[in-house]
Amino acid sequence: MPAAVLFHFPLDPASRLARLALAEARLEVEEAVVRPWEPDCPLVGLNPSAMPPVLRIGDDRRPLVLCETAAILGWIEDQQKAPLLLPRDPAERAEARRLTAWFERRFSDEVNAVLLHERLEKPLLRLGSPDARALRDGRAALKEHLLILEGLAGSRDRLAGRHLSQADLVAAAHLSVLDYFGEIGWANWPSLKDWYVKMKSRPAFRSLLTDRFQGVAPAAWYADLDF
Amino acid sequence: MPAAVLFHFPLDPASRLARLALAEARLEVEEAVVRPWEPDCPLVGLNPSAMPPVLRIGDDRRPLVLCETAAILGWIEDQQKAPLLLPRDPAERAEARRLTAWFERRFSDEVNAVLLHERLEKPLLRLGSPDARALRDGRAALKEHLLILEGLAGSRDRLAGRHLSQADLVAAAHLSVLDYFGEIGWANWPSLKDWYVKMKSRPAFRSLLTDRFQGVAPAAWYADLDF
Repeated sequence: MPAAVLFHFPLDPASRLARLALAEARLEVEEAVVRPWEPDCPLVGLNPSAMPPVLRIGDDRRPLVLCETAAILGWIEDQQKAPLLLPRDPAERAEARRLTAWFERRFSDEVNAVLLHERLEKPLLRLGSPDARALRDGRAALKEHLLILEGLAGSRDRLAGRHLSQADLVAAAHLSVLDYFGEIGWANWPSLKDWYVKMKSRPAFRSLLTDRFQGVAPAAWYADLDF
Repeated sequence: MPAAVLFHFPLDPASRLARLALAEARLEVEEAVVRPWEPDCPLVGLNPSAMPPVLRIGDDRRPLVLCETAAILGWIEDQQKAPLLLPRDPAERAEARRLTAWFERRFSDEVNAVLLHERLEKPLLRLGSPDARALRDGRAALKEHLLILEGLAGSRDRLAGRHLSQADLVAAAHLSVLDYFGEIGWANWPSLKDWYVKMKSRPAFRSLLTDRFQGVAPAAWYADLDF
C-alpha cells in the first residue's frame, strides 16, 4: 500500500470509525489531527464538506482522496480478499448496513447533535457552559438508543449477527466518545457492556483509549479494559 | 430472483433512490405504497425506524428484509457481475460514495428537512400552511447545493465522473421531488439541466414521472422529457 494519511479529529465519532476500520484491516496510515472549525484547516481543499475523516492515499501529485466514512470503509472493503467490514451472509450484511446508516443519521441527529454539542463543541468553540435542558434531552435520547442496543447485544454475538462487522465499529466509535464524557451508565446495560468489553479489548481499539481532550479528563473507567 | 416487494412512499427521496436503483438493475419488484405516519403502517414490524424504503425478498416464512437505502443499494450491487451503481475506477467509486452520503445527510438536513417539511409533510399531516420564512431559508439552502451540483455537472459527464453511478440516482431522486413542487428554476442551472434531461430520459425514470401527490398537481414541466 502506498503512503497514506488519515486526517481526523480524535473525539469525532466518524473519525473514530475510520481509525477502527483501518486498524481492523491492518492498514498502517500516518495520522494528521485536524481542527475542522479553524479557517486554515487542511481539509478545506480536500473535502467539500471540510469535515473529517479524509484518507489521502499516494503521492501529492495525484493522490486518491477518500472523503467521509462511506468512501473510506467502502475502499477498505474493496481491498479485502475475504469480507471484513460486511459479513458474507446477506441478512447480516443488510443489518450491518442498516445499523451504520442508523448511527450516522438517527443517532447523530438525536444524540450527538445535542450531547456532543454541549460537551465537546461548546468548550472547543467557547460557546459558553452546557445548557441543562439540552443535556437532559440528549440523555433521554441516548437512553432510548441504549435500550435498543442492549436488546441487540443480548440476542446476538455481535451487533449485526454472528460476525464482527462495521456495525460494531460504528457503534463503538460513537459510544466511546460518549463514554469519554462519562455519559454511559454501563451498569444499566449489562449485555451492551459485555459487548463493549470485547470491543475495547481489540488491538484496533488501543489508540482510541489514549486520546485526550483539552482540559477534560476522561471518565475514570474510560481506558480500563475491565471496568 | 424470488418474489420481492418494495415498500415505498412515492414522493420520499430515499424511496425514489431505491426505485431508480432497482429499475437500473432491471430487477422487477412488486410495489407497495406505504404511509409511514399512519399507526398501522406495515413498516412498523419490518424496519426499526418504521420508514421506507424497505425491500422484502422471498417468501413470508423467512424473507430477506433490506431496510434503508444503504442495505438496498448494497444488496443490488452485490448481485451484479459488473459494477452498476459504483464505478470501477477507485476515484469515481469514492466520489459516488461521497455524494451519496452528501445527499443523505447534508442535502436532507439543509434542504429536505425544511422545504419538504413545508410542502409535503405539512399538507399530509394537516399541520397548517407553509411558513414563509422556512420556505425562504430552504430555498436559500437549495440554491447553495444547486450551485455545487451545477459545477459538477459542468465539468463531468456524470456527477461522480465518467460513468453513471448511484450518485446520479441519489441526486435525481432528491431533485425530482423538489421539481414536482416547482422548486427548481432550471433556466439558472444549464449544465445541471442537461444532466437532468439525460436522467429523465432513462427508462428507469419513467415510473417516477407518473407519481401524483394528493391535491397538488406537479409543476407543468415535471413529466416533460424536453422542458
